[in-house]
Parts: sequence; structure tokens; C-alpha cells
Amino acid sequence: MANPVVVEAMRGDRIESTHRGAGAVVDADGRVVMAFGDAEQAVYPRSAVKALQALPLVASGAADRLGLSNKEIALSCASHSGSEDHVATARAMLAKAGYDERALECGAHWPLGEDEARALARSGRTPTALHNNCSGKHAGFVCLSCAIGVDPKGYVGPDHPVQREVAASIEAMTGARLSEAMRGVDGCAIPTYAVPLVALARGFARLGTGHGLSPGRRKATARIRAAVAANPLTVAGRGRFDTEVMSLLGPRVFTKSGAEGVFCAALPETGLGLAVKADDGAGRAAQVMIAALIQRFGGFDTERSARLLGFVSPRLSNWNGAEVGLLRPAGPLA
Amino acid sequence: MANPVVVEAMRGDRIESTHRGAGAVVDADGRVVMAFGDAEQAVYPRSAVKALQALPLVASGAADRLGLSNKEIALSCASHSGSEDHVATARAMLAKAGYDERALECGAHWPLGEDEARALARSGRTPTALHNNCSGKHAGFVCLSCAIGVDPKGYVGPDHPVQREVAASIEAMTGARLSEAMRGVDGCAIPTYAVPLVALARGFARLGTGHGLSPGRRKATARIRAAVAANPLTVAGRGRFDTEVMSLLGPRVFTKSGAEGVFCAALPETGLGLAVKADDGAGRAAQVMIAALIQRFGGFDTERSARLLGFVSPRLSNWNGAEVGLLRPAGPLA
Repeated sequence: MANPVVVEAMRGDRIESTHRGAGAVVDADGRVVMAFGDAEQAVYPRSAVKALQALPLVASGAADRLGLSNKEIALSCASHSGSEDHVATARAMLAKAGYDERALECGAHWPLGEDEARALARSGRTPTALHNNCSGKHAGFVCLSCAIGVDPKGYVGPDHPVQREVAASIEAMTGARLSEAMRGVDGCAIPTYAVPLVALARGFARLGTGHGLSPGRRKATARIRAAVAANPLTVAGRGRFDTEVMSLLGPRVFTKSGAEGVFCAALPETGLGLAVKADDGAGRAAQVMIAALIQRFGGFDTERSARLLGFVSPRLSNWNGAEVGLLRPAGPLA
Repeated sequence: MANPVVVEAMRGDRIESTHRGAGAVVDADGRVVMAFGDAEQAVYPRSAVKALQALPLVASGAADRLGLSNKEIALSCASHSGSEDHVATARAMLAKAGYDERALECGAHWPLGEDEARALARSGRTPTALHNNCSGKHAGFVCLSCAIGVDPKGYVGPDHPVQREVAASIEAMTGARLSEAMRGVDGCAIPTYAVPLVALARGFARLGTGHGLSPGRRKATARIRAAVAANPLTVAGRGRFDTEVMSLLGPRVFTKSGAEGVFCAALPETGLGLAVKADDGAGRAAQVMIAALIQRFGGFDTERSARLLGFVSPRLSNWNGAEVGLLRPAGPLA
């Protein structure tokens, strides 16, 4: 059966496009508070689980041994826009481990942020692996490798000790079993394992609360939450959803986008974790879906809730700045 | 009832995302050769009908009176990438009408093409309305205005004589009635009218063959087809679908992308017109849909058909250039 329509793109009074999807709201014990569509479906979480992938770096003590700052820890959870500051932070992380950008195996691409890409072009330079939106995560992998005493070379491979640690972290947090049959290759060359949405949501409930985790992992989740909350510009970039929503709500929410329409979030105050997937992979739909759930389940006061409206139902403008339409939640999210 | 899944995005062996949609293959007499999903649904065709919007410029004799070249006519049908050449061509069109870029009412945006945007940034300049991907269409509107002796000011308004001519052209070509109730505002500020997919496909069958049209319009469609076929780089840009497919197939196909997952095409040799809409508005899905239909209904030899495969089922690579997945037609398009 088709998942329900969860987001409508309006132009004038007409529905121009529709997005279907599924999602789950779950607590740290795995109780499903809300689910829509096929919430048991296993989806590649892509970058939405970067914080779970960064957890071993902190929980192992590697981050402390190398003296990583909160900002550097935030970058290890980031899909960053490729600003000068993002690049410098990734470079500094690698230096603390005794490496430089040649250790990165993520590949190079022009900065994700359009302004940042144009700034780089304006400077006459071309992108390196440090500009890759995943360079912080990869620098974190190099740091973890170094701290546990293994050669980082090949750290993107599923059998490298770093990826084994990362997979174990995702399993512990989500409760899902990761198998080779569920494995694909992410855009930045590391493995991505398909995980049911309800399990992803549970993983984020645990990330947000630390409930049900070992003391080491619990402490690490608190450090990561604090690091990200203090550095919202680091985890994404100016004008981006994660940065703007976390700037607005502070430690009350942790959000993370993933490619192909995945979004996860933690609501520490209400103890809930959220995970959504737009069937068609559209980021704009995933943003509206997760914003609608954050607004509904965050327990925010009227003012904060009202300020979320621009994310729940963003306006669409033409090139002259006139409003021509909007996105809005539909069906189970209306 | 939900439209069928027509495109699957694969990562490894798993379906990562799916796109639903509808479409129609119709001849110039309106006979439906193939339809899938709700092909009677009215969709905003957006930029997919630029050739129909440019038809009055040619059919009225305005293009000849102003001495517009084939390249300039091609630009009037374009969603261009904003290269130096595109900008210069738009400027030249305006100059022939005695105007400059201040007459354009489309608004400015950074070039649609990433390479072109970075080239502009590298030059230290910022975009003008000439860089708007619709600047050729708008320059054509200014030319038409001038040639029919009316002030171009306000030419984007639905009641301006230019937009009345444009609406009459779409009605004549598609057979659909355009009404205020079906009207939205396009990204470049002109009206866009929702038209059933079957009617859009019929309009493109007529554009491709001239069948059923007045002598003036028939001649104008031939001129536009020739202009576009001779200038595939003008109608889109390097690496873009329309440019690449028309470079590959020459006058055997006319394709035009529209925003929000619309795509139209004409197959002059087999006399068919095609129109598709991805429910979710995804351009990547619309490309696969129209490529699959072009391959099936174009009557091409084995070699040309094989060369279309890269558009029917494009490979997805990671940042290291390794293949990690692909898009493929599904359901009625498989």
C-alpha cells in the first residue's frame, strides 16, 4: 500500500506537487507514540545518523585524548556548507591526530552551500576533500582510528575497525541489527545500513535522553548534544534547516538531515525521538515532515511553536520576491 | 487512487526512493497512444511549454521583422544555464527591439548551471535579470510587445496583450481552455495555467508535426523546431538533459523540461507528443520518465536507442566517482 501524502506543494490555490512518506515518534524504551505510513520499513539513514556515527569518537575517550573542542565534535556530526570556518575546523581536527587532508577518503566536491561555493570560486580556488560536507565526520574517523591505534588508511571500508565501531554504535543506539544484506555505499564512500524508521526514532530518543545506554555512551550523548547546541552553524550552515531550527530552539531539539529525504530529530525535554523518510527522497518534504512533528511533540510554548511555522509551512517566492505558493503538511501531519 | 511508481532510485540492491507520476503519449489528432496514472489531471506545465509561449513571436512575424536569428529564437524557448553566451544572446534580442535588460520583469538569480554560477562569481560580478534562466523567453515577450506596437511594461501580467497572445497560443496548440481558476504565478512572474497532461502531449504532437494548425502557426512550429535543433546548447546548457538529448538525436526529438517534475517532448518522425509529471516535482524522475518514453516511441535505430540508455537509467556515483546506485524506470515505464 502506498504511504500517505504528507506534504503538499501549493501554487496559488492548486496543489502542484505532493510528497508521500512515513515516519515514527518513539520513546527511549521503544514505545511508538505515533507512526504513519510504513514506519517499519528499513531506510538508508544516510547523513541523518552522523551523531550516532560520531558517538564512538567521544565514548571511546578519543575526543578527550586528542583534545577535540565542542566545535570539532559538532563538526564530526555535520553535513556542513563548506565555509572557510568549516574547512579550518576539519583541518584542525586532522592536525590533532597528526594528519592532514590527504588522509580523507570522502572525495572532494564544491561546497554544499551556494554562497560558500561562490565564495570559493570568487577566491580562485577549487574544492578539496576538506570542503566535502562530510569532512568533519571523516576527520572524526581519522581521529578515532589514530586514538585506537590503527592505521586510518581504508577507514571507509566496512571491515575497517573504525566502521566496525560505528556499526556497533548504530546497533546499540537503534536496537537494529546491521547486516551486509542491508548495506549500501554512501555518497562519501562509507557504508550506510538500512534501518527501520521506528528503530531510527528510538536511537534518537536515546541520543536525546541517554536512557537505556551504558554510562560511557550516556555521557557521550550529553557531550554531543551540548557540542551541537552550542555550535548550530557548525553542523550545517547559514540559512540551512538544522542550523536555523537549532538556533531557534537551542538544546530543546537536535535535528539532522540525511540525503534522499531522511530526517531524524531528538526532543530531550519530552524524551522522544523522531525519524521520517519522504518516499521520493525530497529534502524539502522531509524538512516539513520533521518540523511538523517537532512542533507537535516538542512541548514548546506558544511563542516558540509559532516561530516554527516558517519551517512547517515555508513560503515559496518567485524571483521578484512575490509569494506564489507554499509547502504544507498534509494527511497525518496536517 | 495513487499514481503508479514510475521511477526507482536504487542504492546497491535496494530501492532507496520511489517516484510516482502520470503521463501521456498522444498524436496530433488527440489519439491517446499510451497513458499511465491520472493523465487527465491538469498540471502547471511551467517552463515545459516555453516553445508554445514563444510561438506568437514567430507566428506573428515579429521575429522576422526584428531579424531574430535562429539562435535567438531558440533562446526564447530556453531554460538556459546562464552562460556568457546565453546572456549575450538575450541582450542582443532586447537590443533588436530597442530595449535593454531594464525591460525584463523576470527578476535576477544566479545562473542555473553550477559551472556558470561559479564562473560569474569568479569574475567578481553578480547576476542580473539577463542571467535568469527565463531571460530569453522574457526578451521574446519584449520583442513581441514591441512588434505588435504595445508598451512592454507590465508584460508579465495576465491581461497584458502579450500574455493574451501567449494564452491563445497554448489554447490553440493543446486544445485546452485556459481560465483564471487554473492560473498560478510562475517563478519568473508570468502566468502559468494548469493543463491536462493529455492536452499538453497533444500540443507537443502538433508542435512536432504542424498537423491541424493554421498555415502561420504550422510554419512557425517548423522554424522553432529547426532553431532549437540547430542550437541545443542555447535551450539549456552544457551537461543538461535537453541539450544532451537533442545533441544526440538532432531534429528527431524536441524536449523541454519544466519545474516541479514536468517534461514535454515532440517526436516529429513518429508524429507523437509526450507529457509527463512526477507527482513530487522531482526533475530527476521526470527526466527518466520522458527518456523512457522517447526511447519507446521514437522509432530510433538500435544505436541511437542504446545511446539513450544513460538518460533512461542514469548511474549514481559517490564523490570518489564510484558507482553506488542508479535510477530506473518502473511500473508502466519498465
